[in-house]
Formats: sequence, structure tokens, C-alpha cells
Amino acid sequence: MGERSRASFDLTDPLLARAAWSRIAEPGDQVAGALVTHLGAAGSLGWLYEVVDDPRRLALGALEGRDERPAGDRLVRAVERWRGRLPGLDPARELGAFGRIGGRLVVPEDPRWPADLGAAAPLALWVRGRDDLAALSARSLALVGARACTDYGRHVAADLAVGLVDRRFTVVSGGAYGIDAAAHRGALAAAGQTVAFLAGGADRLYPAGNTDLLRAVLEQGSVISEVPPGSVPSRVRFLHRNRLIAAFSGATVVVEAAWRSGALSTATHAAALLRPVGAVPGPVTSMASGGCHRLLRDAKAVCVTDAAEAAELGGRAGTDAAPVGEGRSEPQDSLDEVGRRLWDALPLRAHAPVESVARTAGLGSQETLGGLGHLELVGLAEQSGGRGRRLGG
Amino acid sequence: MGERSRASFDLTDPLLARAAWSRIAEPGDQVAGALVTHLGAAGSLGWLYEVVDDPRRLALGALEGRDERPAGDRLVRAVERWRGRLPGLDPARELGAFGRIGGRLVVPEDPRWPADLGAAAPLALWVRGRDDLAALSARSLALVGARACTDYGRHVAADLAVGLVDRRFTVVSGGAYGIDAAAHRGALAAAGQTVAFLAGGADRLYPAGNTDLLRAVLEQGSVISEVPPGSVPSRVRFLHRNRLIAAFSGATVVVEAAWRSGALSTATHAAALLRPVGAVPGPVTSMASGGCHRLLRDAKAVCVTDAAEAAELGGRAGTDAAPVGEGRSEPQDSLDEVGRRLWDALPLRAHAPVESVARTAGLGSQETLGGLGHLELVGLAEQSGGRGRRLGG
Repeated sequence: MGERSRASFDLTDPLLARAAWSRIAEPGDQVAGALVTHLGAAGSLGWLYEVVDDPRRLALGALEGRDERPAGDRLVRAVERWRGRLPGLDPARELGAFGRIGGRLVVPEDPRWPADLGAAAPLALWVRGRDDLAALSARSLALVGARACTDYGRHVAADLAVGLVDRRFTVVSGGAYGIDAAAHRGALAAAGQTVAFLAGGADRLYPAGNTDLLRAVLEQGSVISEVPPGSVPSRVRFLHRNRLIAAFSGATVVVEAAWRSGALSTATHAAALLRPVGAVPGPVTSMASGGCHRLLRDAKAVCVTDAAEAAELGGRAGTDAAPVGEGRSEPQDSLDEVGRRLWDALPLRAHAPVESVARTAGLGSQETLGGLGHLELVGLAEQSGGRGRRLGG
Repeated sequence: MGERSRASFDLTDPLLARAAWSRIAEPGDQVAGALVTHLGAAGSLGWLYEVVDDPRRLALGALEGRDERPAGDRLVRAVERWRGRLPGLDPARELGAFGRIGGRLVVPEDPRWPADLGAAAPLALWVRGRDDLAALSARSLALVGARACTDYGRHVAADLAVGLVDRRFTVVSGGAYGIDAAAHRGALAAAGQTVAFLAGGADRLYPAGNTDLLRAVLEQGSVISEVPPGSVPSRVRFLHRNRLIAAFSGATVVVEAAWRSGALSTATHAAALLRPVGAVPGPVTSMASGGCHRLLRDAKAVCVTDAAEAAELGGRAGTDAAPVGEGRSEPQDSLDEVGRRLWDALPLRAHAPVESVARTAGLGSQETLGGLGHLELVGLAEQSGGRGRRLGG
């Protein structure tokens, strides 16, 4: 310890400070989040360099007089894990390199920052493609699911994406193989906006097999990451990336996921953020839908079977309500018990005597005559000379 | 009016009276139900013959002095619809004929009557095959669904039936083509008990294409109807039959049903009787599962994907609880955030210096050393000479 860690960049620039913090702290580092919230990105970074230079200041409670400080022990441990990332830190160079591939760092101070990321808000977002994140997020829906999906899942994901684009939604996903890719592809095919959140750096269009797809995504939408360029996608980063997908999107729909699929973590994060969660059912004989069925069974997700129902989940109440029922209703559906019995009892081809109709229906003659009159009125029967027959149906 | 309707049988025999009522009143006739409850089957039948003989007695309020009477107007209309069924009524002959094909009339006074039919209790049940309805009903589950089912639905229905028989459930259904037939067949194949409720008379094994199947059902279980032998299955009777299936069974599972399927009425009846309802999901691309998905979407049914989950629905709390999760869990699942980061950061093949592991994981050296110690304890890492590597996973 005790090595000098002078910053090689302007510590007072908030954008550079955010870029630096995004390299220093891993996604989900709550101490870093609290510190940046309390002291600002630049202020907290300056403080970090100070205490790293002179560890006694940390021990003596260096935050006193600036603002309330995060719990002492957690802060000491945090500084210890952050210090290893300070040597060689050069956010200006990183922003420059990222800019040369068309990227920008979007920070919370920017009006383009998404409106409501809640407790999941990252320190900054590395964005390639469209950077008006607030607009992209305002009407958006995450379609997530397993890499190891079936043709059924792929088909449904693409279909939902197309239908959501038709309803002017941004389709959000994780850029992975399987359901993610199908969702992005569907949105692109419908010439819609789509956003891919990557677990590694946004400079690397990972996974390699999806490079062309992700290139198309950033041309028509955005490729975004919470971690800085060059970062490898680790298991933990995937989990935090899932949380970000859930926070960015108005709702999350799991299209196909087995019991242990990572996509379920996105659903869990969405629920924790009080965002609606949907799950697409599939054949119970398919392991690939097991996770979706579990969400439905545990009442942690609403059953979603088409784009209209997905849109209802992520959209505005009222205007985005899914139409109820494609089933056409038939005139005899609205009959009361007497009407239905009579209609059942009436022959379709020949006229039958009213008394025999009454006996078949188990109705009295008064009820039968009254009921026949009603059926005639609504066009479901005709009678003449004490005989009746059924019409329609 | 005014025709003499002397009974040709012993009006004081409760069994004959029930048989007569079952012919006089259609299923769901609430006035008949109330009358039989108030005056008894024989008493109410005797009263009916009296007032039909002498209509002035009805107008004057013939029930006074016996018990409280059902609402006057409804009673007058009821008598009018019942009277048409009195001529030629001969329950003794009917019971005899039914007995010759191995049938029995089971009545509420019988200890074999099912325990809790609730408001849906019929006046009597015409039973062929096993008549210990209380035992059959005590641990039973209805599997219902569309006639126009898919191979998927047929397969799942049979599978569920087999699994339910393994768990000592009676499989209840409606004897129809499609899902019903598959459910009965599955139960029979597993040498289990199965009960078919018919909408028409139990003497006719309807529909014709299922005659052999229903013959097997009555040999291994029961074929039951609320309406007397010879009755045709009308639309209204199908609906009341569905209500009976729901009332007889501990729970109802809809296996496959389109939006307008009659099977949904069974689910509605079950819910009204406060019985658990389940629905089996299917591909959202299949219209045949549309009704099931609607039940799930409206939270009117629990998602059921296998026999264990169906049994949980219809069984005793605790003993029949479905096992949660076929997914095996992996040791690294139980790690905390620090543990997971470290495990991610550790190389699998070669040992890496602890400081580089700490940097990759974004952890301080204290946390890293502590975390590595824990990983070593649980067998997920090994370290020596300031270097560590991942084990397993």
C-alpha cells in the first residue's frame, strides 16, 4: 500500500468522473452508488484519490464535514476494493476511443437519461447507436428468455417483437442467442426500435455469433452497457445486466425459459422494481417452458399469449388494453334458462306442436308460449298455428 | 288442464319418488329442489299429484300448514311445467329396466351418496358400475377439455390421468370425444378408477364412437347421469352435467380448451363451488389452448403442468404438495455476492495471483482472502502460495 495514485485526468469533470467510477466500481456496488449520490461523481472521486494517498484520513473519518458518510466498515472495505483499479485509470482516453466507434457515455445529469431506473440506476451507461434513452425507455418492453430455446420460442419471440413495434414499443433484450436474438430480429424486421443491453463492454458485440445482428441493432436502436469498453461479460455482470433490462423497460415478458434460466432473474428484478411481469406459456411437455410455467404457477407473472396482451402489460392503462376474446358470440348465448331449453327442444327442420316442445323442454305451457314469443322476437324461432321450429344457430 | 293424473305406483316409496322427480324436473330445477328438501321426495310428489288433480288447492296455497312454501308465483309456474311429465310416469318399471342393465338409482338418503355436492346436488343419480360414489368422490379430480383437441392435449390428458391414478385419485370426466376420452383412457390404462358423467341417460353410452370406452369405464368405475334412462343429451343438460362434474370432484383441471369450449363452463362451476381450478398451458400458437390461457390470464385457474401439480390442487394440503423444481441446484448458487464474483474471477485451469483475482473481481484484498478461504472450505476453489484457482462448477 502507500503507492501514489495521482489522477492523470481532470478530476473535476463530472463526465470523466462518471466514466472513471464505471471502471472502478462493479455494477451493483451500493457503496459507490451512495458515495456518488452524496458527494457527486467528481467530489467522491476526488475524495477517493485523497484517502488512497493518505489512508489515515479514511481511518479518521474523512467524510465528516462533507456530508453524512456511508457506514464506516463498508466504506473501508469498499476503498480497499476500489484502489486496485486506480492505477492506469484514463477515462478521457476511454471516452475518446469509445467516441471513435460512435459511442457516448450517457450520465444521469443528461436529459436523455431514462426517467425511472429506480434503485437499479447505474453510475453511467456506455451507449452505441441512439442515445435518447429517455425516449427509448418511455414506451418499451423487455422480451427475454433462454439461449437454449426451441423453434416455438423463437417464433413467438419474433412475433411478439413485430406486434410490439406495430404498437410503437421499443423492444429491449440482452443480445444473447436464442430468445433475445429472435426478439431483436423481429423488431428489426418490422423496422422498429430495439435496444440490447450487454453484460460486457459495448465495444465488443458479444456473443461473436450475434455480431452482425448487434451491428444492425445499433444502427436501428442502441447497444448499451453499464460496464466500460473492454470489460468481459462475467456471470455476476450478466445478473446485473438483467436487472438493468428490467429497470429500463416498462414491463418484462419471459418468452421461453427453463427452470434454471437466467431470464428468470430478469423477471425477479422486474417484480422487485414493481414492473409488470408476463410469461408466455408453452407445451407442458417442453422443458424450455418450465420456467415460464413456474412464474405463472407462482402467480409471479401474467399469462401473455400475443403482442396485444404484452402491450397491455407495458403500456398505458386504457389505450393499450388488449381486446378481450376473439371468440364470436352467438345469438343463443344471451338466452336465459327458459330460452335455452326451448331453443334446444325446438326441431330445426319441421314444425312441432307447442305441447310436445313444452314436454321436451320440461316447461309449462305458459312459459313455453312466452318463451317462444321471445325467441321469435330475436329471430331464433318461428311459430304458426300452435307449432314452432328453431331458426339459425 | 283438469286431466286426472293418478299415480300408477307407490307414492310413499322414497326411492320411487326420487326416480319420478328425476323424470319430472329437469336438472337445475331449483323449485323442485326446494320442494323435495322441504317436504321430502315422497311428500312433495304426493302434493304434486294432489294439486294437479285439484288446481284450486294450488291457488289457495296448498303448502300452508305443511312447511313454508316456495315463492307462490314460481311454484305455480313450476307445477305447470311438471304436470306435462306426469302422464305415463312409471318409475318402478324404469328402475327395473335400469337394474337389468346393471344400474342403480343412488339417492341422497343412501350412505354411498357423495359427501359434498353443495348447491349443485341433484335429486338422484342413475349409476352404472361402481355405486360407492362417496368413496369415488372423496379423492377425485376432474380432467375436462375440448372435443376438438390436438394430439398434444390428448397426450397430456392421458399422462395426467395415469399420474393421478398412481396417486390414488379417481379421474372424473364427461365421456365425450377428445380430452374426456383421453382422460378416461389414461385412467383405464393405469388400471385406475374413472367416472363418466353423461348428459343423456346412462343407459345410452353416448357418443356412439365412445361406446366401447364407456363400457370399459363402467366395468372399472362408473357411468353416471342425473337424467333418467332414455333421456337425450341436450345443450342445457350438457351444461348441468358440467356443473355435476365440478361438484363431484375435489378439483377441476381444464387440459385443452378453445375460447368457447364448454369445458370452461365446468371450470366456472367449480370456481362457483369454491373448488380449485387448474388449467394446462399449451402453445400460444394453438387455438385449442386459448381457453386455458384465458383462465390463467384472468387468474381463474392455477397453472398445472403435471400430475403432481394436479394432485396438489385436488388433494390434501401437505401430503399432496407437488415437489418444487426438478432443477438441480449447483454449489455456487448459494454463494453471496463476494463469493460469486470471486468464483467468476478465478481461472479454472491455472492458478492466478490473488491480487489479479481481486482486481478482476473488483474486490479488496481483505475481501478476496476471506472469500477465497470460504470458497476453499466449500470445495469451490483451492489456493497456495498467494495464488488460487476455481474448482468444479
